[in-house]
Amino acid sequence: MSHLKLHIPGPVEISNKTYKAFCTPMIGHRGQPFKDLYARIQPQLQALFQTERLVYLSTSSAWGVMEGAIRNLVNKKVLNCMCGAFSDKWFDVAKRCGKQAEALKVDWGSPVLPEMIDQKLSQGGFDALTLVHNETSTGILNPLNDIASLKSKYPDVMFIVDTVSSFSVVDIPFDQLGIDVLLTGSQKALAMPPGLGLFVVSQAALDRSITLADRGYYFDFQEFQKNAAKNMTPSTPSIAHVFALESKVHDIFEEGMQQRFERHARLSQMTRDWAHQHGFSLFPEPGYESQALTCINNGAKPGGRVIDVQKMQSYVKDQGILMDGGYGRIKGTTFRLSSMGDETVESMERLYKVLDTSLERL
Amino acid sequence: MSHLKLHIPGPVEISNKTYKAFCTPMIGHRGQPFKDLYARIQPQLQALFQTERLVYLSTSSAWGVMEGAIRNLVNKKVLNCMCGAFSDKWFDVAKRCGKQAEALKVDWGSPVLPEMIDQKLSQGGFDALTLVHNETSTGILNPLNDIASLKSKYPDVMFIVDTVSSFSVVDIPFDQLGIDVLLTGSQKALAMPPGLGLFVVSQAALDRSITLADRGYYFDFQEFQKNAAKNMTPSTPSIAHVFALESKVHDIFEEGMQQRFERHARLSQMTRDWAHQHGFSLFPEPGYESQALTCINNGAKPGGRVIDVQKMQSYVKDQGILMDGGYGRIKGTTFRLSSMGDETVESMERLYKVLDTSLERL
Repeated sequence: MSHLKLHIPGPVEISNKTYKAFCTPMIGHRGQPFKDLYARIQPQLQALFQTERLVYLSTSSAWGVMEGAIRNLVNKKVLNCMCGAFSDKWFDVAKRCGKQAEALKVDWGSPVLPEMIDQKLSQGGFDALTLVHNETSTGILNPLNDIASLKSKYPDVMFIVDTVSSFSVVDIPFDQLGIDVLLTGSQKALAMPPGLGLFVVSQAALDRSITLADRGYYFDFQEFQKNAAKNMTPSTPSIAHVFALESKVHDIFEEGMQQRFERHARLSQMTRDWAHQHGFSLFPEPGYESQALTCINNGAKPGGRVIDVQKMQSYVKDQGILMDGGYGRIKGTTFRLSSMGDETVESMERLYKVLDTSLERL
Repeated sequence: MSHLKLHIPGPVEISNKTYKAFCTPMIGHRGQPFKDLYARIQPQLQALFQTERLVYLSTSSAWGVMEGAIRNLVNKKVLNCMCGAFSDKWFDVAKRCGKQAEALKVDWGSPVLPEMIDQKLSQGGFDALTLVHNETSTGILNPLNDIASLKSKYPDVMFIVDTVSSFSVVDIPFDQLGIDVLLTGSQKALAMPPGLGLFVVSQAALDRSITLADRGYYFDFQEFQKNAAKNMTPSTPSIAHVFALESKVHDIFEEGMQQRFERHARLSQMTRDWAHQHGFSLFPEPGYESQALTCINNGAKPGGRVIDVQKMQSYVKDQGILMDGGYGRIKGTTFRLSSMGDETVESMERLYKVLDTSLERL
């Protein structure tokens, strides 16, 4: 079967340039060429994360780091901010690590607001908090800046933030925000193949991790720090991903970070406009729409047009594009269009054209 | 810098065919094409592991699965068989997971023998055992068949076996051996890029894992089983690695498993012969030499020739090959030559020629 262009919210389409770097002839991971590679991209990764801390590379999906953050940081109790499939699951994962966890739940499609978090944290007993910045399942972008400003009020609470589908899409200045863990994955807006997690941790998080006696080895923050300081990783890394990352950070700085944020803002606005023009309403609460993907309401909430998503997916597929049909318990009653990664005005316009002709066939 | 051909004990050289498969245009991991891919290779993976159990794919290095096995299986105490850098480290990792662990230590260069394990296990209190089949740091191949035969005497002890550098090199019939976990990595004898762990677990291991309340999510055996039954993985997999794996299992069955084992036996014998012909002695105890890599004694033990390994590495590098200079506390006093993966009589003879001319320059 011929390739379907991916417009699902990750993995996304990979450029030939990235694939070429991905297949750079193999090198050893304890030798100088790998150390040189990591050292070469470290300053660019730091610029990307807007931090002076070292950026760690984890050979895992983001879930590995999400679990690792729980194991490294939760001695007492974690507050899990829940607003969709992925943030909801983090609560479950925390409990599976044998940790005390408490839920802060909002309706899917609504954001987690700072006052809700403040109210929970003020009850005391928490030493960590998890937040999914951009909830990929609902297309909600939570107000990270305002949430991060709570950190100064709760300095002992570790703020763990998943930016899997917002990283390199919107401005996330790690050091300035004062949060403790910022993690992302390779297969969303970075437009790399899945299989690599990237993250930074604060000095406070590093200090906290020492007090956890069962944090293990594979996701141990101490090991990541010790090895990153020598331009290595604790375990054999996915070297191909690191080569691809070198190519990708080069792309990002060639475009310019600000220009990249503006491009994503524009593309997501175009998609929201397309939806409105075709009678659809959006699933996320107004003002909190993701700039990486657009979650379109299709009966999950009152209002707006409702279509047969499966048929739509099939017509879109006939024209060489893979589109999403909703995730988890809003599968079918929502659908999502991704503008993450390398997408351009032109490539999005091609998508809208395909959507248009598919809608006509319904 | 031009590419150095890898003769280090992993990662090893990757073929163009494997790289081509590695860059198959991206697909989603929850869609039918990925399920079809996993379903297509599952029977071949089962043939390779010689099992009727499902083979799991972990987006991690082998260490992730090694830690995961501890978290899934150790309620009481684990016996860690230690005979080199990697097996020694497993003891450390078990303790870092907050587990009771006891060491069974032999000198580096010696094998772990069944009677030693029997003596330890007979003291009682253990519910798991870790064994590195082929200790990559010392070039020792432990007698797995004889060790596995102890399983019937200790049915409640979970036998966890790392075959990172022996898998697809020597015959390891999982079901017939009756062990509980068999794990390997992609970057050794499978000659794929690093970043994928492959493993199987027994029904008993699966049953045991349910009793562990803090086993987490990322390496949870229950999640792997549940997802593999639907041809999926718990988290976003490294899809590129799964494409490469499809290509590699095809290579393996095209060659024939028995033929592959014979090739590796022959190549490692050739390397041992080369060492003896040049006045070197081997580091592993006779009768327990690895068939994947040859660990040459260079002063770690009495007897045999001693050379300046660093100089040797540099001369070999001048001729386009990367060779190892020993690992851990036997760095420099041993060195290792790998014949894993796609190596042939011809490619090994090229290596020996390069080694010969380098020795002459010393």
